[in-house]
Amino acid sequence: MTFSFTTLGTASALPTVERYPSAHILTVRERFFLIDCGEGTQIQLKRAGISFTRIDNIFISHVHGDHIFGLPGLLSTMSLMGRTAPVFIYGPSAFKPYLDFFISYLGDGIAFPVNFTPVSYKEPSMLVEFNNVEIFAFPLRHKIETYGYFFREKEPALNIRKEKIEAYNLTYYEMARLKEGRNVEREDCVLQVEELTYKPYEPRCFAYCSDTMPFAKLADWLCELSQYRKLDLLYHEATYDASDKELARKHFHSTAADAAECALKCHAGKLVLGHYSSRYRNTDKILEDARAVFPETYCAKEGDVFDIPVSRLL
Amino acid sequence: MTFSFTTLGTASALPTVERYPSAHILTVRERFFLIDCGEGTQIQLKRAGISFTRIDNIFISHVHGDHIFGLPGLLSTMSLMGRTAPVFIYGPSAFKPYLDFFISYLGDGIAFPVNFTPVSYKEPSMLVEFNNVEIFAFPLRHKIETYGYFFREKEPALNIRKEKIEAYNLTYYEMARLKEGRNVEREDCVLQVEELTYKPYEPRCFAYCSDTMPFAKLADWLCELSQYRKLDLLYHEATYDASDKELARKHFHSTAADAAECALKCHAGKLVLGHYSSRYRNTDKILEDARAVFPETYCAKEGDVFDIPVSRLL
Repeated sequence: MTFSFTTLGTASALPTVERYPSAHILTVRERFFLIDCGEGTQIQLKRAGISFTRIDNIFISHVHGDHIFGLPGLLSTMSLMGRTAPVFIYGPSAFKPYLDFFISYLGDGIAFPVNFTPVSYKEPSMLVEFNNVEIFAFPLRHKIETYGYFFREKEPALNIRKEKIEAYNLTYYEMARLKEGRNVEREDCVLQVEELTYKPYEPRCFAYCSDTMPFAKLADWLCELSQYRKLDLLYHEATYDASDKELARKHFHSTAADAAECALKCHAGKLVLGHYSSRYRNTDKILEDARAVFPETYCAKEGDVFDIPVSRLL
Repeated sequence: MTFSFTTLGTASALPTVERYPSAHILTVRERFFLIDCGEGTQIQLKRAGISFTRIDNIFISHVHGDHIFGLPGLLSTMSLMGRTAPVFIYGPSAFKPYLDFFISYLGDGIAFPVNFTPVSYKEPSMLVEFNNVEIFAFPLRHKIETYGYFFREKEPALNIRKEKIEAYNLTYYEMARLKEGRNVEREDCVLQVEELTYKPYEPRCFAYCSDTMPFAKLADWLCELSQYRKLDLLYHEATYDASDKELARKHFHSTAADAAECALKCHAGKLVLGHYSSRYRNTDKILEDARAVFPETYCAKEGDVFDIPVSRLL
């Protein structure tokens, strides 16, 4: 029941000796979702011990080089390793010529299907769903068309309380109905869902917001997407600290405080920061700025794993 | 008077946690020549402490991804760092569409001129020269069109032996003539170049051979290019060890022994190996195979610097 976020790259446009360009993995149970794919992603994936064969879906926020230059190498390597299963890529439509060029230039070099789904939404919209997770996209505010992604576990089927099975001598038909959340009418009584079942765990959710300048609607959208419950984990870019707020505005980026204010407004459980400007040797000031607003802030480093444990509700 | 070779990436097609794709720097005095530019080159350059601003010339051996996927990121970063000076790139003509695509896709993202010179030779030919070094290209034998590069310091101007200046009371005119290697006729005698001058140092040379399968002509060409003197340093790919010789032939690559035989035949001073298959966890067997044929062999690691000191001839 893993639900965890791994940061493979925390640099912004200019990488440093310690910081790689943007790349992240959200692990939802057996699936690895790759979010952005900066130069060096394939090496960072190996360092993190993440199997390429379990990456089927790649989400691209925008077509700046530090978010996409690792894709040709990753796809080539997948192919050299014998992959035949398709890869699904989601991103702004401007990503398509880039992908088309590579697939044509590499020719036989990519021996599996690559399916691209252009993302083009003015407000949060369901993008794709799998058996246990739904993924939404929403526009961010950056120099070019950019999307954030929201991952939400689906509501689990209800469990029947063991002691009630015998007490009410439940039939399979009745149990199936109750698991779907529907009351069961008997001749002498009504079997109430609330009494006989429980939700086994609280679905978890995660939002990815990079690159973006702050805008008021963002926190509203995140509240809506997390269905007004807790947003377990928010990843938000924090390219600058408070001393460089003007630069942040000029380049359509956020400061650490901007990210923290968003986390506060959308009732995040945890805030993880990244995408740091190369001007900062360390993230002390970034962390300090953000924690002043939102104490549950963490500055990501390469290879960090932020785990959201499941909350059993028994 | 530096003349040194730095290996930034020693992987072949599949990088590993320790090994980056192909990228190398030949330093000739104040100039850094970049040879191949695999994914992660910009980060490896930073690790090696090499200033991007002193890289003006980039040599591409062939258009396989592990030799070129680092170029878009490197050029973008150069531009973000404010570069305005042109970059000169040399490589097979198949590289041009790749370069053209990026320059057009990145638009304003590359704010300096990029000049591409297609390489298309059937035998060793002078490609470009600078004030103290000449660079030649020669074809290699690989799956696709591939070139090796040969760097040779120019012959230095002769020095006048100090004690002869006074002994013969030399004029500036006479000294200038002698430095050019020409005898000077006086009324009473002939001033002999051999007696009055000396060559201050022996020009150094370096050859880059990757990717290639072995072929007989290669050593002949390298002898010719080094003017039948010592080839100070030969970098030769050694993708496989002797146990995988069949794979080497199948994939148009060399074994360590192939590389060593080439070094022996062309009278190399030192042989440096790289481009190792990811199947080998370490290079022990590669080194053993090569040293059995050519003892002065070294297996490159990321960040290694192979220095060729100048031989003063005073």
